[in-house]
Amino acid sequence: MVVAVLDRTPAIGDDATAWRFLRSALTPATPTAPDGHFDEWFARRCGANAFEVDRVPLTALPGWHFDDGTGDLRHESGRFFTVAGLLARTDPGWRAEWRQPIILQPEIGTLGILAKEFDGVLHFLMQAKMEPGNATIVQLSPTVQATRSNYTGVHRGAAIKYLEFFAPGRHRVLVDSLQSEQGSWFLHKRNRNIVVETSDDVAVDDDFCWLTLGQILGLLRRENVVNMDSRTVVSCIPLPPEAPAGEGFAASLRRSMSREAEPLHPDGQVLSWLTGMRAQHELIQQRIPLDAVLGGEWFRDDERIARRDGRFFSVIGVDVRASNREVRSWGQPLLAPARPGLVGLLVKRHRGVAHVLVQARVEAGAAVVAELGPSVHCQPDNYRDAEPGTRPAFLDWLLAVPAGRLHYDAVQSEEGGRFYHAVNRYVVAEADEAVPDEAPDGYLWVTLRQLTMLMPHGNYLNVELRSALVCVHSLWCAGSDDDES
Amino acid sequence: MVVAVLDRTPAIGDDATAWRFLRSALTPATPTAPDGHFDEWFARRCGANAFEVDRVPLTALPGWHFDDGTGDLRHESGRFFTVAGLLARTDPGWRAEWRQPIILQPEIGTLGILAKEFDGVLHFLMQAKMEPGNATIVQLSPTVQATRSNYTGVHRGAAIKYLEFFAPGRHRVLVDSLQSEQGSWFLHKRNRNIVVETSDDVAVDDDFCWLTLGQILGLLRRENVVNMDSRTVVSCIPLPPEAPAGEGFAASLRRSMSREAEPLHPDGQVLSWLTGMRAQHELIQQRIPLDAVLGGEWFRDDERIARRDGRFFSVIGVDVRASNREVRSWGQPLLAPARPGLVGLLVKRHRGVAHVLVQARVEAGAAVVAELGPSVHCQPDNYRDAEPGTRPAFLDWLLAVPAGRLHYDAVQSEEGGRFYHAVNRYVVAEADEAVPDEAPDGYLWVTLRQLTMLMPHGNYLNVELRSALVCVHSLWCAGSDDDES
Repeated sequence: MVVAVLDRTPAIGDDATAWRFLRSALTPATPTAPDGHFDEWFARRCGANAFEVDRVPLTALPGWHFDDGTGDLRHESGRFFTVAGLLARTDPGWRAEWRQPIILQPEIGTLGILAKEFDGVLHFLMQAKMEPGNATIVQLSPTVQATRSNYTGVHRGAAIKYLEFFAPGRHRVLVDSLQSEQGSWFLHKRNRNIVVETSDDVAVDDDFCWLTLGQILGLLRRENVVNMDSRTVVSCIPLPPEAPAGEGFAASLRRSMSREAEPLHPDGQVLSWLTGMRAQHELIQQRIPLDAVLGGEWFRDDERIARRDGRFFSVIGVDVRASNREVRSWGQPLLAPARPGLVGLLVKRHRGVAHVLVQARVEAGAAVVAELGPSVHCQPDNYRDAEPGTRPAFLDWLLAVPAGRLHYDAVQSEEGGRFYHAVNRYVVAEADEAVPDEAPDGYLWVTLRQLTMLMPHGNYLNVELRSALVCVHSLWCAGSDDDES
Repeated sequence: MVVAVLDRTPAIGDDATAWRFLRSALTPATPTAPDGHFDEWFARRCGANAFEVDRVPLTALPGWHFDDGTGDLRHESGRFFTVAGLLARTDPGWRAEWRQPIILQPEIGTLGILAKEFDGVLHFLMQAKMEPGNATIVQLSPTVQATRSNYTGVHRGAAIKYLEFFAPGRHRVLVDSLQSEQGSWFLHKRNRNIVVETSDDVAVDDDFCWLTLGQILGLLRRENVVNMDSRTVVSCIPLPPEAPAGEGFAASLRRSMSREAEPLHPDGQVLSWLTGMRAQHELIQQRIPLDAVLGGEWFRDDERIARRDGRFFSVIGVDVRASNREVRSWGQPLLAPARPGLVGLLVKRHRGVAHVLVQARVEAGAAVVAELGPSVHCQPDNYRDAEPGTRPAFLDWLLAVPAGRLHYDAVQSEEGGRFYHAVNRYVVAEADEAVPDEAPDGYLWVTLRQLTMLMPHGNYLNVELRSALVCVHSLWCAGSDDDES
């Protein structure tokens, strides 16, 4: 029996665990992993291995082929992922109907971080890992990033390091939920986000390093260091409720986690609002052959699958050689966004409590019609010539926001194992009077506690909102209230 | 803006609302709605309208046709639902791969109950409604059972009565979540389960009747009166935490709702266990043409789609004439289960607190691989000749359980708008020593509070478990501890 051997002590979501997370978040560096140690280690790891990523035609990817009947791009093993077609239909008023390529990866992978206490402070075992699509090839990843194909040995590579710590019942589970990934690019994709704590001795391999939560959040201030998989797992880590005094922005963020602070909308209303949005919008998804996507707006040649107007994304091929991956060389398709994205989270204080503006966002591959997304999420260049009324809400406000209202502004990469140079500029900005207290239809002001409450259940916060949330956590924990009052 | 006009008073899930529900649950009848009044009204409604349901060939259903390219059974409007094919693949150890017909209904319908306080007691507006597939044609349904097709007027029928009360922001929302339906028969089906309270005057139509929760739960002791749609909405109604003393079964059920009662597994472990089950099992779902299902185990003739061995279910056609439905006559396909089902919930007291045994159940059409299902759910006749080791766990125990351990035993119907004479025998039984305290792999003992905690989020409790749960609530509220100690 799986659960009976687990520690009976509550862990997930309880206050004691949340306070241990906070202590780790407020400890930027420790003797175990001083910041200097990290910089040195990370630079060494980036230089230690040879990586080469070259673009090659889709027709030149070993093991990959376009399926005879459908044109779907598949691996000969039937595993990893498939690029197929999707026909999406939504209710009038949005976009009526469109076809697009979509990544199918029905397996649930594991994004796992191993935790261990040193000198009373939780540390997290992070990995310097290359992914072919990363803009900066090596980024900081969770301890384990394993697809089902990985752990069932489909690609015949070396065993995944530390995977055994995530076997059921062996260690104390601190975080464990299924979370969605990019709904515009994946159909119904989910990964298991898990943090387990061990008291065993752990042999630390060259590519791994123990860091506090404070260090990880600190590294989020840098660009393209903490990868998407790390961000989504870290976003699931609950920070504790507290209600500090103070006029500053960080204090208002902290109060936003408090159970005492009154949210603009009670919890039940937040759930009811999202349920209503999901019921009100129609999203009909039909898998179609990739060939049935081509011919109109989309085309395929040997090199790639792309749109004639150059918008949205293309599917390209890469040839990869790495000296430290489970498999030393391989070819694979990657989805390449046409342009960098912008992910913006608007924050506004209501009665001294920070509220963030979320939207009920319908995406082609969403599992439950709509999930909560950040206030703004788009490729701004797509709207360069758009009529004012057709531009995403708050985009213009955000692009013109004064520097003093920008609390976070950094470029971060999305998953480099599936996407090629997919980067978003993440911005956290404090709203002014131009942003109404009453959110427009499809948008809602919520507190950080309310978002945290939804996190254990999955399919509530989309991956961009979870990423934006860890950016907020980095401000929350930095506690720097000197910037404004 | 949708939410701003909602009442700011917390409603969903708060204790005050839960206590109001309890008061209604403990009020079996009131002057507003005496039990005699119900019986008389219901008998009158059953007799008031003429209903005729005749089986007809699938090829004789007006508006329905087998699609030329795929063989899928569709309505000419493209709405209502479609019977298509599904190829399901699961991990080794379960069933490897199979094809089956499946109902596609990607729209999210509304199952809504209107509530109103009379003399301090919440009453719920229930409807005497015919559905063609019901074993007893008229059953008690929610105030509103509306598909999107209904409220967008696709079938050109009369307007849905009381639908306007469920428009956003107009009334106080007490319950509001998306819940899944039969995962073996539907692909990714969900309906909105909503209860709203009004203080407006409500004109009560002939087919409608105000009942307390106690009356509805009392009617659950009868067979085939409270329809599945009512049961799923009522299952979402939280009953309050309390911790009464007492040695009886009902007291142990009530303590199972208490926050003080220690569950066998902390909440976080329950979530982690289910996340693990979902990640561990593979479920790959591929829609295929219905024609691609036929030829092997399944066949189609003019009359129906069925299996050669007569197992599981068939798809049949019915011609319907009704004098009080939105449309007065129509034909439609229905899914007809081969045999009656058995849904059993095992209950065991641990330290005086009732725990129910749930399983992580993988079904072909599940949206998130596995949901929590009742301890036992099968068509027992399918296993008549099965080897002992291949029969569902606890089936033999349940079939042989002494009458003294049977706290609930009644036949209830599943959704009569999609299924033809689909009935399950629902049983709640107190386990003896033969049922181990340590649940086998894939099963878990949980408290009623833990199930209630998951209810607002959807896709946790499958529809059979939700139905079984209202059967438990009927015992919980009856409070009859005289049957045993």
